Amino acid sequence: MSILLIGDFTETEYATWSSRLLLHLPGNEPLVQATREYDKRAVRVALVANPPAGSLSSLPNLRFIQSLWAGVDQLLSDASLPTDIPLARLVDPAMTQAMVECAIAQVFYLHRQLPTYLKQQSERMWRQLAQPLASDRSVGVLGLGALGLPVARALAALGFPVVGWSLNPRKDTSIESYHGTDGLAKVANKSRILINLLPLTSQTARILNEALFQQLPTGAALMNLARGGHLVERDLLAALDDQRLTHAVLDVFNAEPLPADHAFWTHPQITVFPHVAATTDPASAARIASENIAAFFAGRNVSGLVCRSRGY
Amino acid sequence: MSILLIGDFTETEYATWSSRLLLHLPGNEPLVQATREYDKRAVRVALVANPPAGSLSSLPNLRFIQSLWAGVDQLLSDASLPTDIPLARLVDPAMTQAMVECAIAQVFYLHRQLPTYLKQQSERMWRQLAQPLASDRSVGVLGLGALGLPVARALAALGFPVVGWSLNPRKDTSIESYHGTDGLAKVANKSRILINLLPLTSQTARILNEALFQQLPTGAALMNLARGGHLVERDLLAALDDQRLTHAVLDVFNAEPLPADHAFWTHPQITVFPHVAATTDPASAARIASENIAAFFAGRNVSGLVCRSRGY
Repeated sequence: MSILLIGDFTETEYATWSSRLLLHLPGNEPLVQATREYDKRAVRVALVANPPAGSLSSLPNLRFIQSLWAGVDQLLSDASLPTDIPLARLVDPAMTQAMVECAIAQVFYLHRQLPTYLKQQSERMWRQLAQPLASDRSVGVLGLGALGLPVARALAALGFPVVGWSLNPRKDTSIESYHGTDGLAKVANKSRILINLLPLTSQTARILNEALFQQLPTGAALMNLARGGHLVERDLLAALDDQRLTHAVLDVFNAEPLPADHAFWTHPQITVFPHVAATTDPASAARIASENIAAFFAGRNVSGLVCRSRGY
Repeated sequence: MSILLIGDFTETEYATWSSRLLLHLPGNEPLVQATREYDKRAVRVALVANPPAGSLSSLPNLRFIQSLWAGVDQLLSDASLPTDIPLARLVDPAMTQAMVECAIAQVFYLHRQLPTYLKQQSERMWRQLAQPLASDRSVGVLGLGALGLPVARALAALGFPVVGWSLNPRKDTSIESYHGTDGLAKVANKSRILINLLPLTSQTARILNEALFQQLPTGAALMNLARGGHLVERDLLAALDDQRLTHAVLDVFNAEPLPADHAFWTHPQITVFPHVAATTDPASAARIASENIAAFFAGRNVSGLVCRSRGY
């Protein structure tokens, strides 16, 4: 039996992942990679990162799929993905920490008005802006899962009034939280900065749209750290143009890399990051994926087990 | 007897300060302002914010000087300032909180490599940079007083390894701390980001110089949030040019406003802020100043009492 590594990796990335995985995987199962020749019947586990559509349907003895990314929306959009094989997404404390740090960085970038000060510097303009404290800048967090909840808690600990929203009711978040459609309006009303950390599912696609932007306080800012599919790009441009939103920080896009002729690149009210909020660290991900494989075959709890109907 | 308000205020600022102060000052002493006619013999207390040199030497019955700014270096540089009259600088929790938030914003701006990502956006370049966690980015804080220590503690709580430095030994800082010239080299050696929050005195003037920059790790970044007089501007430009330092965030300058033809405005490795790290909030400052005046005349402890020989 063998473990298959398959993804949209360069050969260098394959080499990095292989060397990291070999430190942690059980020694008795060879690690094979999809760009080399391998026996499809021998594959018992697939370690995947955006594998080509259809690539997992031809493995007759596949028992477990471990994603090396936190988001599995692209994987689940593959209609040929076997529905009866357990699938786990990566839940990695190092990635959670990276996302928390990214969210802090971007919230303070907006809170301390860096877009305006950087523009003023480019014009050699010495002008002091009124500066509220964090306690006067409420932040909304959409998504209270493995990434959203730690982000919400970190921002609350830094003094921001934080409200959270999730599709379904969440208990014990220690954050003022709401759910459902009514709850979304309540959270939007209170969010001078709105951060999206939802999983991308049929229920959350295009959730960052005109209707939501209408419910934000005038002058609010948006941060999308989840998936490009959450955002209706045209609605964002309209909300920025009429100053309902002052700024957007975007890390994810419908097309990545963001095409060179895309309007977002040069928009003065948009800060573009190349999908770097929380990248997988092969060192910690290889350890966690290996532990998950061992847990699966030992019948223990697997971290990040995906519910197919829920979509994450 | 009366209380004199004197500073480099506009008439609007005078009006704001007066209305705030009248909410808190004892009712039996009139508040007079320096731009109107007043009886110099009646002035028992001076509330000052960068008053003109010499303006406090002609008040025969002056008993107490309360600064409305945290830094008193400019005040102490006035040779005619009466040396026998107690002087207090403003120690305001709201200003401390603003400085903590500013430091977090700028540390994360550097930590998450925003200068590079913003430059890439201007070139429509989609390129992901290696991103360490906070735990791999050590931060040095120069100055462990009313502003430096809370900043050091906040950054340590966020996961950065923090080392602190003060002129004289400090106990119970809960931060790994050093002092003196040897200590400064130790702190510099460890600081991938170095933050200056020292008071400006004859001992700390020009402390951000070539010799110090030589001791920083290659690729370090500098943040000056204290006074322009701490920095040797020419040395900074040289260190940036040869890439020993990657970036500097400067909030304070030798000449403010920063002159329009100054090299800092357009330097790609310098981010200029117009002295906004922690501005005085008249609402809280008026309350604290009034409490301090009451404490002084009641013989109780005054907050922020300045030691003239120490310089702060």
